[in-house]
Amino acid sequence: MKSKIILALLATAIAGSALAQVKPEDAIKFRQSGYAFMSWNMGKLKAMLVDNPASYNKEQAIAAANLIAATANSGMGALYVPGSDKGKGWKETRVKPELFTDRDAVGKVAMAFNKEANELAKVAATGDAAALKVQFGKVGEACKGCHDKFRKDE
Amino acid sequence: MKSKIILALLATAIAGSALAQVKPEDAIKFRQSGYAFMSWNMGKLKAMLVDNPASYNKEQAIAAANLIAATANSGMGALYVPGSDKGKGWKETRVKPELFTDRDAVGKVAMAFNKEANELAKVAATGDAAALKVQFGKVGEACKGCHDKFRKDE
Repeated sequence: MKSKIILALLATAIAGSALAQVKPEDAIKFRQSGYAFMSWNMGKLKAMLVDNPASYNKEQAIAAANLIAATANSGMGALYVPGSDKGKGWKETRVKPELFTDRDAVGKVAMAFNKEANELAKVAATGDAAALKVQFGKVGEACKGCHDKFRKDE
Repeated sequence: MKSKIILALLATAIAGSALAQVKPEDAIKFRQSGYAFMSWNMGKLKAMLVDNPASYNKEQAIAAANLIAATANSGMGALYVPGSDKGKGWKETRVKPELFTDRDAVGKVAMAFNKEANELAKVAATGDAAALKVQFGKVGEACKGCHDKFRKDE
């Protein structure tokens, strides 16, 4: 019940703002951009935590983690506007139709990602590379959780 | 002299990390993504600060400002890899050749943008919409400062 109220409030907030006016093709382009730019930052973390730990750099890790958290916090849900279930942004969207219908499952993967991404920024700030590697893995799992459910294979 | 030493250190840091391995077409794609996703967030701020002040929402303003600051802090300079002066990411790059040669001018616009973007996040956190509108204008000017100098017209 509570989550339904939150969803209703959220829908109102989005509909009441200028966000609702983003065209489907722009919305697809913006979300593809957000995910692509995050993937660059995930790649930087992977390089310094997994592939080549000698290249670990605390400031760069913080910068990458903050970008990932800020993206998670940016309200990308608003970019899944009606009509953006198909179509081309930078390229054809790979979103599955279920993302627009299965709100409970969407809420679950979105909240999981949000939680792990914000934790990533917190752990990065401590400078503990080993802990960051563990948390990086959790973020990767959260990404995958959504991809498996809501993204078509290429 | 000092700035030359910093540049040299920076170049070494980049060359020594996995970042140097980003292919030109991927580098162009990542930077286009970063700018496009920032522009979505600038658009959200414009909507609530300029176009429709009644829609101002502190939490959404903070989220947008944090994304812009995190992008500014993410070290996008590393995406201007050799060979990425021409070519296609999501689309043909609009970068001017001067960006790869005029290091002093690049440093100036990059530092100006970084300063204003981080200030944006600080001002957003205060919840002062009028002050945020002023700072939003300064970020826009900093964006334009780089576009005018280093981006070709479409």
